[in-house]
Amino acid sequence: MGSSTTNPRWGCVAIVGVGLIGGSIGLALRRAALAREVLGIGRDPDRLQLAQRLGAIDRWSLELVDAAHQAEIIVLSTPVQLIAAQAVELLQAPPRRAVVTDCGSIKGVIVEDVYGSLPRSDAKRFVPAHPLAGSERSGVEHARAELFQDRLCVLTPVEATDRAAIQTIESLWRSLGAKVQSMSPVAHDEFLAWTSHAPHAVAAALVRSLPETAKPLVATGFLDTTRIAASSEELWTPILLSNRDALRRAIDAVMGELNVLKELLTAEDAPGIRRWWQQARHRRQQLAESDPTAQSPTDASER
Amino acid sequence: MGSSTTNPRWGCVAIVGVGLIGGSIGLALRRAALAREVLGIGRDPDRLQLAQRLGAIDRWSLELVDAAHQAEIIVLSTPVQLIAAQAVELLQAPPRRAVVTDCGSIKGVIVEDVYGSLPRSDAKRFVPAHPLAGSERSGVEHARAELFQDRLCVLTPVEATDRAAIQTIESLWRSLGAKVQSMSPVAHDEFLAWTSHAPHAVAAALVRSLPETAKPLVATGFLDTTRIAASSEELWTPILLSNRDALRRAIDAVMGELNVLKELLTAEDAPGIRRWWQQARHRRQQLAESDPTAQSPTDASER
Repeated sequence: MGSSTTNPRWGCVAIVGVGLIGGSIGLALRRAALAREVLGIGRDPDRLQLAQRLGAIDRWSLELVDAAHQAEIIVLSTPVQLIAAQAVELLQAPPRRAVVTDCGSIKGVIVEDVYGSLPRSDAKRFVPAHPLAGSERSGVEHARAELFQDRLCVLTPVEATDRAAIQTIESLWRSLGAKVQSMSPVAHDEFLAWTSHAPHAVAAALVRSLPETAKPLVATGFLDTTRIAASSEELWTPILLSNRDALRRAIDAVMGELNVLKELLTAEDAPGIRRWWQQARHRRQQLAESDPTAQSPTDASER
Repeated sequence: MGSSTTNPRWGCVAIVGVGLIGGSIGLALRRAALAREVLGIGRDPDRLQLAQRLGAIDRWSLELVDAAHQAEIIVLSTPVQLIAAQAVELLQAPPRRAVVTDCGSIKGVIVEDVYGSLPRSDAKRFVPAHPLAGSERSGVEHARAELFQDRLCVLTPVEATDRAAIQTIESLWRSLGAKVQSMSPVAHDEFLAWTSHAPHAVAAALVRSLPETAKPLVATGFLDTTRIAASSEELWTPILLSNRDALRRAIDAVMGELNVLKELLTAEDAPGIRRWWQQARHRRQQLAESDPTAQSPTDASER
C-alpha cells in the first residue's frame, strides 16, 4: 500500500488511464502523500502492474465503476474520444459522490456531451480540465512527478458546475505544482487551435511535403520544428476533428502569413522580409521569456 | 600560443568570424592539435579576446588580409551576404596560396559570385561548404568542440575547383568529426529550401499569426515548433531572399498539404485524417531513427 503519513488531503483518488499524464499525477500524489491511496483503472493488467511497480498507483482495477465506488476524486486521463462516455457512466454510478475531472486537450464537445446527457444534479460534479503538459513520449514508463511543475492547467467549468467540486480540482492541480486558470470551453478550444492544434498540423504538413531526396540533409532545425508530428494519429484525429472550425481558421491565418512572405520574396523586398522576420523573432523571444520552464535563447541564430 | 604537439596536420588555419560556428571549429582544431595555430579574424577586439580566452583561437587580427598572408586554410564563418566579397578579396591576396572555404547556408549565389568574379586560377582555391550544425544560440560563448560530431558537412565544389583543395577541406571536416557529402550548389540550395528555409518560414508564420490573447496558453509543443523563428533577421533575410525560387516552391507544397487537411476536416473524414497524420508520423519517426544525434521518441503523444 502507498503513502501512509497522517492526514492526507484526500481519501482515494482514482486515475483512469495510467499513461504519461495519469502516471505523472499518481507519482506526484503519492510522493507528497496527498491521497490516502491512488487507484489505477485501465484495460491492460500488464501496464497497470508496471504502473504499480513504478510507484504511480497503490493498487489497480479493470472495472471503471470501482472508481465511482471507492474514490473521492476521479481523474480521466484517457484519449479524448473516450472521456465523455466514461464521465457519464461514472457520474451516474452510486454513491454519486466523486468529483470527476479529465485531462483532455479539447473541451467543447466533452462538456456538451456530459452536461447534455445528464441531469444537472449528476453533471455538476464534472470539472473539465486540461493540463498543458506532455512530452513526445507516452506511457507510464515516461511519467514524472514533476511533469506539471509550473505548467498551466486550464479548467473549463460551466455555470452548472458545482463550486465545491471546482475548488477540489483547483486544489488538486495546485498541489501537483501547476498554475490554474479558468475559461469557457469554447475559449479554451479556440486558443488551443492556435497554440497546439495548428502547430501540429503545420509540423505534419512540413514532414509530408519533404521530398525523399532531401531527407539526408535534415538537421536539428527541421527535427525540432516537426517533433510533434510524431504524435499518435489515434490521439490526434479526434482532437483535430472536434476542433475543426477553429483549426481551419488558424491554418488560414498561418497560410496568410506565408502568402505575405511569398509576395515579399517575389518583390525581392529585403527591408520588408527583415521587418516580417523581426516581428516574429521579437514575439518568439517574448514567449520564451514568459515561459518559466523554457530555456531562454537570447540571440538566436540557427543556420 | 596554441597546441604544440609534434606534427600538426596543418600550419596556420584562419577563421574569419569567430562566433558559434567559427568558434566551434577553432575549439575542435585546438583540442586535437590539428593546426600549428588558429588565427581569428573579426571586427570586434572584445569578442576576439573572449574567443582567445575561451580557447577557440591562438591569436587574432582585425585585418582580413592577414588571413591570406599567414594561413594555409581560411574558413569564412561570416553572414552569407559577406562571404563572396571576402572570399574574392582573400583569393586575390598574395601569396595566393591558401585554400578558402566557407560555412554559409546558401551556396548558389556565393559560388556564382566567387567563380564569376575571378580568373579560374584564383577561384579554384575556393571550396564552398555548409556544415549542417547550429543551435538557437549564437556567439563564441556557446561554441563547442563537439558541435560537428556526426553532423553532415555538404561541399559544393564546381568543375573548376582544385581537386587538392577539395581534399584539404574534406579532410578538415572529417577531422572535426563531420560526415562529408558533395553535391552541386543548386542541389544544395534546393534541398535546404525544404529542410531548413521553409521550416524557418513556417515557424515564423506560426508565431506571427498567434493572437495575443492565446499567448498564456502556449506550451512546449508550440515553443519547440517555433524555436527557429527566434533566429536573427540579419542572418536570415539574405538567406531566404537568395533562395527565393526554391523556397516559394517548398512553401507552396506545405500549403498544399495544409489545404488537403482542411478539406478532410470540412468533410469530417476521420479515416482520411488518420491516414494523413499516420503518413506524417511514420516519416517523422524514420527521420528520427536516421539521425544519430537525435533523441528517438518511440511512440509520441504530445497532448
